[in-house]
This record gives sequence, structure tokens and C-alpha cells, in this order.
Amino acid sequence: MGEFDIIREVFAPLTAGAPGAFNLIDDVALLEQQNLVVTKDLMVAGVHFLPKDPLDLVARKLIRANLSDLAAKGAKPLGYFLGCVWPANVKREAIELFAQGLREDQETYRISLFGGDTTAHATKTGPLTLSATFFGTPPKQGLTPRGGANLGDDLYVSGTIGDAGLGLAALKKEFKFTTVDKASLATRYHLPEPRLSLGAALAGLATAAIDVSDGLIADAGHIANASGLRAAIDAVAIPRSPAAGTWIAAQDNRWRALAALSGFGDDYEILFAAPPSMRRSVTVAAKASRTEVTRIGSLTRGAGVGLLDERGAEIKTSSTGFDHFKR
Amino acid sequence: MGEFDIIREVFAPLTAGAPGAFNLIDDVALLEQQNLVVTKDLMVAGVHFLPKDPLDLVARKLIRANLSDLAAKGAKPLGYFLGCVWPANVKREAIELFAQGLREDQETYRISLFGGDTTAHATKTGPLTLSATFFGTPPKQGLTPRGGANLGDDLYVSGTIGDAGLGLAALKKEFKFTTVDKASLATRYHLPEPRLSLGAALAGLATAAIDVSDGLIADAGHIANASGLRAAIDAVAIPRSPAAGTWIAAQDNRWRALAALSGFGDDYEILFAAPPSMRRSVTVAAKASRTEVTRIGSLTRGAGVGLLDERGAEIKTSSTGFDHFKR
Repeated sequence: MGEFDIIREVFAPLTAGAPGAFNLIDDVALLEQQNLVVTKDLMVAGVHFLPKDPLDLVARKLIRANLSDLAAKGAKPLGYFLGCVWPANVKREAIELFAQGLREDQETYRISLFGGDTTAHATKTGPLTLSATFFGTPPKQGLTPRGGANLGDDLYVSGTIGDAGLGLAALKKEFKFTTVDKASLATRYHLPEPRLSLGAALAGLATAAIDVSDGLIADAGHIANASGLRAAIDAVAIPRSPAAGTWIAAQDNRWRALAALSGFGDDYEILFAAPPSMRRSVTVAAKASRTEVTRIGSLTRGAGVGLLDERGAEIKTSSTGFDHFKR
Repeated sequence: MGEFDIIREVFAPLTAGAPGAFNLIDDVALLEQQNLVVTKDLMVAGVHFLPKDPLDLVARKLIRANLSDLAAKGAKPLGYFLGCVWPANVKREAIELFAQGLREDQETYRISLFGGDTTAHATKTGPLTLSATFFGTPPKQGLTPRGGANLGDDLYVSGTIGDAGLGLAALKKEFKFTTVDKASLATRYHLPEPRLSLGAALAGLATAAIDVSDGLIADAGHIANASGLRAAIDAVAIPRSPAAGTWIAAQDNRWRALAALSGFGDDYEILFAAPPSMRRSVTVAAKASRTEVTRIGSLTRGAGVGLLDERGAEIKTSSTGFDHFKR
């Protein structure tokens, strides 16, 4: 049983009659009459964040992960509803630190809390569980879909890939980084940058988009499957930070290292497709939104994802992305 | 530290600039521009439902508890977003049973699932945690507020009070009921009836309304506090089911039993205020919606809630309602 089977087979039939639910293949839903885009993301201690992560950073990651879903669709965020289930013995100071993080990012992104529910587990071991429902307005060009890519479209990604995963490895002491690299990677893990300006600039230009939360390979697979095509990714083209470059250089096998980077989650970059005729417009959109964008491949005939080495041969990738029901 | 202090002191300031958040004193928020009412309720195994409760009933209670919030405001439900955190070892059959319950009540209430998030705890002991965000349209007369009651208004409640709490006691074998009574009380606990027709009929008529989820006394206190008044409740007038009547007759002290009934949660009836000049209209609204409505008291000068015996003397009530941070 996989997470995506459950969603497709058990929950998607419950959306019949709601076209704006997109059959649950997208991260957002559209309430067309109300001109509202809505997304809902859960975060659970020990699964989506480390139980020892500072709670103000957890709050900001919750906001940013949700905003990232809106960003990929070109939507403008307005506000959110928040549900918190605290461990039974939570201290008021912990809740206040969490709220301080919310306040900071509410100011950064000019959004407001609208309502929610605050409760506590029956036991001290009940893990902090957070649920946020964010809403915003769709771009006037319409939401950038997940499955709209055409044969021959270019595939692009913003920012750099794999840093959040390396940040998690650094925090868990699975690899030794320099102090500077560790700090920058940990920040990428704790505080993703939702690409709201870029997403808005891509509305009407990108044919398909998704935010990279499950990992580059997995999310490229989501675009490919939804579009009925194959995503061919040029491994050396995948944008890497200097810290990730140092990590790759320390690995035995460069190709395996690139495959690993592309399997890490939590990047919250935008992966999108656009026709080759639009390369200039993509460059303009990237510049206007002050966001680095890199062309990393294209949509070809077939299905799934191919990660290719410099000779065009396929690199074996072990990870197909994080699955909550396959651990 | 109490749940309501946390909401008022820590979270309410985060809604500044969002008038539709009602400073978090109501169970719903209004997105005015979008003409949308939104409510969000969490349910956690071991807190809001029994870990052994059949999962189709849990799903239906989740839907009904949320619909009850919309009902009290006179809103018409449209759909919902769902977040589920399953224990790590959940079986597919369990998720399917849960979805079957959702499907049943989606049909009953003509609503659709629009989106959400499905995830799993890191451990087998992580309790099933459910989060639902429901939305609907406000009545054209405007939402029935929580704090709009005026001095001298009558106080009414729909249906009967205390049955869900007795149902929980029956399921936990804390009191022995006849088989018939146990079944009817357990149903009241598992399957509340959101009073959607009554709520809609009361729009523009009731000056204040709330759904009774924390307990009659606690929720009367919410209306009283938000309205700057005192709720005086005539204990003998509180509507009781035959099963509750049997239970009261078996208790040593009738007044203490009535106070206990009024402290139980999970009734999901509508408690509302309306001016005495509107008694006829209230009767008409109750008839039109085929819902029993009982006048149980009035709003007086002062603060808090008084539960009064037949001589008008105050009955001591121990419960001030369920508080997730005071257990």
C-alpha cells in the first residue's frame, strides 16, 4: 500500500462532482465560484520535522511549505487556518515560541491567521501535530496545472537542489560539514523560501508546475505522469549550492551522489515545464522575480523519469520519493 | 494555562487585520470578499473519540461536528479539506472503512471532498489525528454571531441535552443502561445531528448562537461572555431524552444530576438567544425545520452562567466545560 495509491483509489472518488479538486492529483484545489485556491499540509514531529527543532522555525516551515504549494500554482496567499495538537504536557512558553514564528512569517508574507483549533493529545508522548489550510487568489491567467506539459517542453527548476536533505543529514550528524556549510544547509532545511514571485511570473507561461517537496525525481515524476509524458533530466545540469558541491566531491561516485541529491525532499523550489519558444520569457520571469532558474531537461515520449549522465545514459536512482506508508 | 487563555492571548493577536476572524471568539471565520464561512475542527484518538470506535463512525462524527459549527451560524455547507495522520502500522482496510463513512455523510449532506493531506505517524502508537476544514456560504441575513444577545433575550436549545455524554459513559461501562437506552445514547455520542435546517431558519432571528460541543453550561458561558451578559438557565426546563430521564431518576441528587448533564459535551445541539417578541417566529422556525426547540432561560445582567432550581436558587456546577489544557 502506497500513499499515492491510497489517495487515488480511496480518497479521489470522494471528490466526484468537485472539478476544482483536480481529482486530488494537485497540491491545491480551486473554489472557482469564490475565486479561491486552497491547500492543506500536515506536519508531524518525528516525520516532517525533528522533535528538537526550535518551535519558531517549525511554525515558519509550516507556513512556508504551504505557501510553496500556492507559489507553484502562481497564486497569491491571503491567509490560513491552523490546527495544533500539542503533547499533553506542553508548556505555555513552547506555544508562545511557536506563535512568535507564525507572527514573523505572517509579516514577511503579509498574511493573517483566520481561525483554527487548538487541542492536546491524551499523552505526553503524543507528537506535536500541525495542520494548516492556506488560501489565496489564483493568477488571472489561471492556475498553472500539474499535468499541462507538452511533448518537447523544457524542464526547469528554481534555486538549488538537495540542500534541505543535506541540512537534515548535517543536523542528524550523518555527515560532517564545515561550520559555515552546516549552518547554510540547516537553514535550507528549517526555512525554505517559497518562490511566490517566480510562481506568479510563470503564470500563463509555464505549462506545468509543482513545488519540489518529495524530491526532484519524485516531483518530476508527478509532472510527467500527470502530463502523460516522460521527464528526462540531465544530471550535471541540476543546480547545486557550493556546500552540496563539497559534499558531492567527497562521495565515491559522483553520479550516485547526484542521484541521491535528486531524491532528497524539502527543497520547496519550483519545478516547471515551458515550451522551448518561451526560453526568453522564462529568463525574463526569473530576472523579474530575482530567482535563479536552471534548465535541467525536457519532456519526452514515455513515462516516468530518467536521470541521465553526460553521455545520455540513465543513472540508477534508488529513491522514488518519500512515501508516508512505505517506511 | 487554559485552552481559552491560549487562544485569546497567544493566537488571537495573530488575526489582527482580519475582521472575519472575529478575534477567534467564534467557531467559524468569514471570508467576506469570497462570501465564504470556514470552520476547522481537529479530532484525536483517545481525546475526541474512543480508540476502538468504528472508523466509519469516526469519519461521520468528524463531518457532523464541523457541520454543526456551520449550522449554528446559519451557513450552508459546500465541501471540505481533510488531513489524516494514521498510526504507522495502519491497514488499508481501516482507511477504506473511514472513507466509507465519509462517503455516506457526504451523500447525506450533499458536500464534496476538495483536497487535503494524508500522512502517517513515525510510530505505531501515534494516535489517529484528523483535521477537517469545512466551508460553506453564509445566510443572506448574515452569520448569526456568538456575542449578539441582548439583555432580556430568551435562551433556547434544540433537541435534548446530555445524551452524548451518557452515551460515552455507557460505552465506557461507567453506568449500566438497558440495551435499548444504551444503543440510543451511544448513537448520540457517535453520530450527532448537525442542525442545519434549524440554523438556517434562525438566521436573522436569533441574536446569538453556538453549537453545544463543550457542554451546555460552558457554551452558554461563551454566548454570555461574548454578549457581556449572564445566562440564567432553568434546570428543570433543560430538555432530556427518556434515557436521560431514567438515568436522572437513578441518581441520589436530581439537581446534581441535572448539573452533570449540562456539563457533558458532544451534544451538537444549537443553543441560541432571541428576543421575547420573537417567540412565535422561533416556534415557526422550529416547526419548519422539524426540530424540537425548548426555551430554557434568559440573558440577564451580570456575567457567567447560573443554573437555577425551581425556586430560582443557584445549583452548584462543577464543570466549566472541557478544556484540552486542563486535564
